[in-house]
Amino acid sequence: MKFARYGEKGLEKPALVDAHGQLRDLSAHCEDVTGEAFESGLFEKIAALDPESLPVVNGSVRIGPCVGKIGNFIAIGLNYTDHAEETNAPIPTEPILFNKARSCVVGPYDDVVLPPGSQDADWEVELAFLIGRRTYRVSQDNALQSVAGYFVCNDVSERDYQLKREGQWMKGKCCPTFGPIGPWLVTPDEVGDPQNLSLWLDLNDERFQDSHTSKMIFPIAEIVSYLSHFMILEAGDIVTTGTPPGVGLGMKPERYLKAGDEMRLSVEGLGEQRQKVVAFSN
Amino acid sequence: MKFARYGEKGLEKPALVDAHGQLRDLSAHCEDVTGEAFESGLFEKIAALDPESLPVVNGSVRIGPCVGKIGNFIAIGLNYTDHAEETNAPIPTEPILFNKARSCVVGPYDDVVLPPGSQDADWEVELAFLIGRRTYRVSQDNALQSVAGYFVCNDVSERDYQLKREGQWMKGKCCPTFGPIGPWLVTPDEVGDPQNLSLWLDLNDERFQDSHTSKMIFPIAEIVSYLSHFMILEAGDIVTTGTPPGVGLGMKPERYLKAGDEMRLSVEGLGEQRQKVVAFSN
Repeated sequence: MKFARYGEKGLEKPALVDAHGQLRDLSAHCEDVTGEAFESGLFEKIAALDPESLPVVNGSVRIGPCVGKIGNFIAIGLNYTDHAEETNAPIPTEPILFNKARSCVVGPYDDVVLPPGSQDADWEVELAFLIGRRTYRVSQDNALQSVAGYFVCNDVSERDYQLKREGQWMKGKCCPTFGPIGPWLVTPDEVGDPQNLSLWLDLNDERFQDSHTSKMIFPIAEIVSYLSHFMILEAGDIVTTGTPPGVGLGMKPERYLKAGDEMRLSVEGLGEQRQKVVAFSN
Repeated sequence: MKFARYGEKGLEKPALVDAHGQLRDLSAHCEDVTGEAFESGLFEKIAALDPESLPVVNGSVRIGPCVGKIGNFIAIGLNYTDHAEETNAPIPTEPILFNKARSCVVGPYDDVVLPPGSQDADWEVELAFLIGRRTYRVSQDNALQSVAGYFVCNDVSERDYQLKREGQWMKGKCCPTFGPIGPWLVTPDEVGDPQNLSLWLDLNDERFQDSHTSKMIFPIAEIVSYLSHFMILEAGDIVTTGTPPGVGLGMKPERYLKAGDEMRLSVEGLGEQRQKVVAFSN
């Protein structure tokens, strides 16, 4: 199943994407697409419905972030060997964790806003997932049972804030609009093997990132198990799993986002994002 | 005003602490003590009540975390010069930010559980505060208007996880029970100047930390303003502001928590915490 959320910012409604790619409203069947809803049986409830019986969502609605009521927004750093190399970082021997702020989350087609004075904003296509149950100290064998669904994330990053403003990466990862997620939350049964997906990002119609989730250093089962040994994961937490090479920080010379740029990005089977980069205005 | 939350874990009810230190139940007047509730006028609503008219909470109830429905749990690192020195870290020229997980939050008298195999768990008494309104790019002059209240936080930290397990401190900051907060959320009118409070921590009745918030490198108005230039702060976010010297990492030789230890800690006017350290059990 593919879930989505549509409508004005902060007022999004839940929807199902039917076999023809048509949005069908789920408001009569659930309050929102959240980790908590999955923990309470959303998957089984919606699986029992005939999508054709659901109201079609008409018109050119805004697509919101594919998950509501997000808990922790956790990110994995340097999870592709060749991306670590391009940024001159050592290859990690254990997953590197950092946090993004929930308040940076936007929809997949919303504008990405450069903070005032920002010179070093960068793109990062990533495979992300939603935690659908409380998880602590889970084995790798059982870890994927905690995943409610997968989605595309652009882990937009201000490299100056991240790397040159006194330690700890989150400073460059939390700016408003720096977390486009969606368009769809796709359930694991439909994704199949999450380590067998191509992913790519185009900047102004030129391909900058082009890789495959098989190249992750730490696969998702290991990430979930590892995280769960350092903290309790809760239904509603989301995790983005690191980006492959081809970011602006890795270019020679470095190449960063400027107003007017357009990013397009996708992970196989999870839909496509498209963001215009705009300058900050009050 | 002093707010508190009492009752079983996950089922806490809101309360007011009256002039005699007696808990008075607020369930008839608000759902919970949260940033959102302050944003919707909780302060004004409760200020209009006569505390004596509220039901007394009887018996030896458990005191829960003093804030419910927490958003982001943000922490400031190395915010006292002499603490930076004792840990052999350079004095920061800008605030250092990292994240704790919401799932590590517990009440002020709950046990602190050592993760299996943990050898390097450490204590950190800190002054923390609750954000009571959406805040972006606020000036230092206006920053304190975003603070709904102050409370004590023990920023318990596993130093091996934090410093030796592949970068980014959050790995040692998020373990379950590593975030005791409370007992009270005290509103700014009652706290007065947040940079004029003593704070201390005793381990097994011996004083290890003994300092004053006037010694912070970055005062709270600067922290709020600074944070708000990197992310949107939302009602419900909590921020803990760094610890003074006297932690286990700074001892020679280093001294870490073991099962059976007892921590007592306080910030002036915000009440006292007390935690027993226990071993992990399934």
